[in-house]
Amino acid sequence: MSEVKNPKVVVMGGGTGTFTVLSGLKKYPLDLTAIVTMADDGGSTGRLRDEFGVLPPGDLRQCLVALSHGSDVLRKVFNHRFERGELSGHSFGNLFISTLEQVTGNLDDALEMAGEILKIRGNVIPVTLDKIRLVAELRNGKVLQGEAQISDYQLVSRFGIKRIYLEPKAKPNSRALQALKDADAIVIGPGNLYCSLLPNFLVDGVRNALVKSKGKKIYVASLMNKHGHTDDFTVYDYIQELEKKLKSGIIDTIIYNTKKPPAALLRKYADEGAPVEFKGGNGASDRTFIGANLLAPELYEGSRADVVQRTLIRHDPDKLAKKIIELL
Amino acid sequence: MSEVKNPKVVVMGGGTGTFTVLSGLKKYPLDLTAIVTMADDGGSTGRLRDEFGVLPPGDLRQCLVALSHGSDVLRKVFNHRFERGELSGHSFGNLFISTLEQVTGNLDDALEMAGEILKIRGNVIPVTLDKIRLVAELRNGKVLQGEAQISDYQLVSRFGIKRIYLEPKAKPNSRALQALKDADAIVIGPGNLYCSLLPNFLVDGVRNALVKSKGKKIYVASLMNKHGHTDDFTVYDYIQELEKKLKSGIIDTIIYNTKKPPAALLRKYADEGAPVEFKGGNGASDRTFIGANLLAPELYEGSRADVVQRTLIRHDPDKLAKKIIELL
Repeated sequence: MSEVKNPKVVVMGGGTGTFTVLSGLKKYPLDLTAIVTMADDGGSTGRLRDEFGVLPPGDLRQCLVALSHGSDVLRKVFNHRFERGELSGHSFGNLFISTLEQVTGNLDDALEMAGEILKIRGNVIPVTLDKIRLVAELRNGKVLQGEAQISDYQLVSRFGIKRIYLEPKAKPNSRALQALKDADAIVIGPGNLYCSLLPNFLVDGVRNALVKSKGKKIYVASLMNKHGHTDDFTVYDYIQELEKKLKSGIIDTIIYNTKKPPAALLRKYADEGAPVEFKGGNGASDRTFIGANLLAPELYEGSRADVVQRTLIRHDPDKLAKKIIELL
Repeated sequence: MSEVKNPKVVVMGGGTGTFTVLSGLKKYPLDLTAIVTMADDGGSTGRLRDEFGVLPPGDLRQCLVALSHGSDVLRKVFNHRFERGELSGHSFGNLFISTLEQVTGNLDDALEMAGEILKIRGNVIPVTLDKIRLVAELRNGKVLQGEAQISDYQLVSRFGIKRIYLEPKAKPNSRALQALKDADAIVIGPGNLYCSLLPNFLVDGVRNALVKSKGKKIYVASLMNKHGHTDDFTVYDYIQELEKKLKSGIIDTIIYNTKKPPAALLRKYADEGAPVEFKGGNGASDRTFIGANLLAPELYEGSRADVVQRTLIRHDPDKLAKKIIELL
């Protein structure tokens, strides 16, 4: 019997965007790896970092749940957020990962155990195992410490971000470098440019591993700009910012949304930002731009009372996955 | 191939005593069931009951861990107690069981899932799925609400316990009744008489199921008396108190410890109580009394720095299990 190897796809970022990409891609026969930024320090994750000195579990949890082939109940339990008392705001999965890390003394072992319990197919790899903070220098010279502050547009918006860096400098997770080397395709985003995407490439060696990789480099543009971070950015502006850090022309293919979210939803987002528009590329002939309606359908196809997230502007995991698969 | 059925052994109680019995018995080819009192409301368990309205997870967790054939790490994680910050004092396993209960809406389903994850062999059955409190009336007429208060000997000691009851009255878990009916042997204890053993028989129908069961009824006497509860009780006094609630002569076999704990340890326990002594039975010819050295060896065979519990007076799981097995 001849052995057919599944394509190796690496997804980079963190947060909801990566969750969405993985949720869609997991339905295909792929060898999936999520490389996750470790700069998160807000909410439940931030409290766990502060109290126990653990690495940030939140984005890892989302990736584990996305790749889980376990029961619905188990996935719900991992995403369960306590709403009362002293545990209020904590996600159960975050507690689980942090407890496993404390007991095993090692985040990689913790993720392996959590992955077994959740019956994941694929790998979830922290981009670094060092304890880092994301730092942003604003254009007025002010310095913001930590992703939670940096992602607060009110703190950032008047001046904008001049540059970001990690403190202290971080060593890469060798498994992340290997995954990039072996990848047939690397999907970057969607996700916040400064808080979810670029922090991956601030870890020593990760940028080089990506640039040297023979895998196709795919960027999935965000649906919405983020006020204070990327006001009025077009799809091409995002590519330029990414390639400043990576290498000019390194992104082969760009996937972006063409469907405008409904006006009522856009009004809800007015404080945070406007939709990302295409407005043409830079004319480089060796890039592919793929525009399609990528919006989650519950946003405009009527409403179901049980779809809590219908008031958020989100990618549809299946539509997005289909576009990625067509590239492999 | 002829089918050999493993003996069905039911262990009743809750807390450390039941953990010890199960830990020893799990090494034998038995069909093990733990029936667990649901009156606990102290510590981590009490906080979870108060905040989330869940059933008490603590004793269930101990039984699950005892019956687990999963990895050491997983068992450690379940028993992990947070020592810092807002989670301080909570056991991770308690949080897990309570979260599963909240997500599934049902403690039996929650225990099944937790049991799968921990790879348990056997069953852990809450004696009731009703939300109850243990209430004690003292001899001076004062009423103590909740096991946490009742197990505090300083609250109880001046007057002693006159009677205990559940509030509200509790319906039995049908699975508990079935397990008692089918049992080849029922092991009661070791455990606190008023807080761990008797509350099981205050649930409607449980006493009758035990009395009617054809299984051998074995009582494992505690090592130490509990000040305020059972001062100066001999082994036979415990049997009498149990049989007042059950039925005179219903206990077939009594297993008790004959080895006196070292003096240094007894001094540590001076406030809580003295060792339970045998001092002869009631002469009933149809009971078997089995006395043996049942103390955990680290109590007197030198000291190992890694045996944290060496300063507690505990049964040895293997010695105790061996005595029970000889009766089957």
